[in-house]
Amino acid sequence: MEDRSIQVNLCTSRKEKPKSDELQFGRTFTDHMFVMDYSEPAGWHDPRIVPYQKLEIDPSAMVFHYGQSVFEGLKAYKTSAGEPQLFRPEKNLKRINHSNDRLCIPQIEEEFALRAIQQLVELEKDWIPEAKGTSLYIRPFVISTEPYIGVAPSRHYKFMIILSPVGQYYKEGINPVKIAVENQYVRTVRGGTGEAKTGGNYAASLKAQELVSDSGFAQVLWLDGVEKKYIEEVGSMNVFFKIDGEIVTPALNGSILEGVTRNSVIALLNHWNIPVNERRISMEELRQAHKDGLLEEAFGSGTAAVISPIGQLTWEGEDMQVNNFTTGPVAKKLYDTLTGIQYGRVEDPFNWIVPVGSQVYSKAQ
Amino acid sequence: MEDRSIQVNLCTSRKEKPKSDELQFGRTFTDHMFVMDYSEPAGWHDPRIVPYQKLEIDPSAMVFHYGQSVFEGLKAYKTSAGEPQLFRPEKNLKRINHSNDRLCIPQIEEEFALRAIQQLVELEKDWIPEAKGTSLYIRPFVISTEPYIGVAPSRHYKFMIILSPVGQYYKEGINPVKIAVENQYVRTVRGGTGEAKTGGNYAASLKAQELVSDSGFAQVLWLDGVEKKYIEEVGSMNVFFKIDGEIVTPALNGSILEGVTRNSVIALLNHWNIPVNERRISMEELRQAHKDGLLEEAFGSGTAAVISPIGQLTWEGEDMQVNNFTTGPVAKKLYDTLTGIQYGRVEDPFNWIVPVGSQVYSKAQ
Repeated sequence: MEDRSIQVNLCTSRKEKPKSDELQFGRTFTDHMFVMDYSEPAGWHDPRIVPYQKLEIDPSAMVFHYGQSVFEGLKAYKTSAGEPQLFRPEKNLKRINHSNDRLCIPQIEEEFALRAIQQLVELEKDWIPEAKGTSLYIRPFVISTEPYIGVAPSRHYKFMIILSPVGQYYKEGINPVKIAVENQYVRTVRGGTGEAKTGGNYAASLKAQELVSDSGFAQVLWLDGVEKKYIEEVGSMNVFFKIDGEIVTPALNGSILEGVTRNSVIALLNHWNIPVNERRISMEELRQAHKDGLLEEAFGSGTAAVISPIGQLTWEGEDMQVNNFTTGPVAKKLYDTLTGIQYGRVEDPFNWIVPVGSQVYSKAQ
Repeated sequence: MEDRSIQVNLCTSRKEKPKSDELQFGRTFTDHMFVMDYSEPAGWHDPRIVPYQKLEIDPSAMVFHYGQSVFEGLKAYKTSAGEPQLFRPEKNLKRINHSNDRLCIPQIEEEFALRAIQQLVELEKDWIPEAKGTSLYIRPFVISTEPYIGVAPSRHYKFMIILSPVGQYYKEGINPVKIAVENQYVRTVRGGTGEAKTGGNYAASLKAQELVSDSGFAQVLWLDGVEKKYIEEVGSMNVFFKIDGEIVTPALNGSILEGVTRNSVIALLNHWNIPVNERRISMEELRQAHKDGLLEEAFGSGTAAVISPIGQLTWEGEDMQVNNFTTGPVAKKLYDTLTGIQYGRVEDPFNWIVPVGSQVYSKAQ
């Protein structure tokens, strides 16, 4: 695969690009997409960049029936010099293969996939918006396409990359939201697929979200599937709390997705000598900390929103306000630093940034 | 919707039908399919029977990313008089709406959906094979098609019905299989999507299946996601045990799919005055019953295989043989009676059979 070149078939007319202040998350797609097919015994083959277009897929394709799919989400940012750059794309590609393993999908060569992302983003760089907080969202994904309705791993797949120019995830920028702690539904459980970025986890999450959104909650906070006591994630983000001066976040336990932003937050906190502890945290502990006045901050972390402060947690009818429903200093500093690095405004002490034109896997990792 | 007629667009050339002894499960599809679209505010609209054909779907369609999909499986059988008939289709349509509710998919009118199944099967009745144990598998399913990669319920869907002529699920007919009890992976957990027939449950199950199939096991037996002690399902079937003269099956607990065959098995056992008990069953209890010589039979139940006897259970390295690896009398009687009713060879005391040409929802239910 290493030396395989990507066939390019350019479209004849370009779409109109949306204005920066009219961008919605995930509704507009660029002029081209990347596609690569898998079948046996050929393996992954025919990598190509083609005009963005509908797929022709058999109604019996396995993805429609048995949910065998994985995806990733990352962004391309434009620096003030107009250079497009990526943030830790190797982490996403490592994770897609972790997801592939759990879902019985064949591995993708990570170096080649990064090259595909870079080549596609380079081609579409005029689609990267330039207004503050905007970026080009990159969605690599794999779907199972064998026309067979038996329950078994598919023998045909498509790996695709599509791009969508996006505004800030929350229109209001970094502002606290209300979160409902979910007691009935669960997202996943250890031994399940929680560690993998696969469709079924998100499908399972919709019902709880729907039930609370009418009451003004932005997301639900998920408890563990076994005891329904311990905190796992918030919406589709990882979650952090500042309790009595220490930052805590749920330890990876097999049912929590290892977020790239989560990993970056922990690295930054360590870099700043702010104590951070990955461990089990129960809602009861959080309630007690709130009661004692020790719950100083709470925030989610994820690629889409970067850092999303939690202004209120509601559990079993009790409203717990955090930091007077304002963004706390740690959340603010993390948001400013992460977005600063992503847009090339502040120093990148970790070598996280990957310019779209650079060779990545030749550099030390 | 009640008076809406189904537009029919017939194909111009028919495919060659496979020979009865060459049928494989789920690989051949008939000449036509049923499609109906959902969008807001129109609701479900444009029901139509069209030539079986590939779908044109946007790469950003939500089903590819967030797994919002449900499906059903039932069969059309041909009687010796050549009449096509269905087995309890109302149960499948009730269940697809139960699944729809869990997955935030709009409800489908069950009476209309049955009419669609009947009209499609009537049109394709020459595709119903006639050899022993063969049938026409019916796959209704819903996929989310909105071109949007935000995590939210889709606002566009397709409800489709495709048909596949199938042979006996196991080539060897009703013969015992070896089952491995799964200790690491889980299928789902209470509060999850286990009660719904949705892709993610099946995607989650592939890994465990793959790991044991090399060792000659046909399926895995799933334990509960909370304590990993209690028996839930076997592969994608419900499971029954005969212990000391009594039939037991795991009680529906929110993470077990309520099988139409499971329900029918319980009804038949009651009809025959054979004691049947829906309750929690631990693997430890089963091991003790086996040790005491009281584990008399074990079998799975499902639409595809009808009844699948379990000849051996392997748990924590221990092989437990059941009934000397032969089909027990209860499994045999259930298989003969269920298939007898399905093919119209034996009396149907429960009014389970629905001729393809009949009005169903006008009869007492």
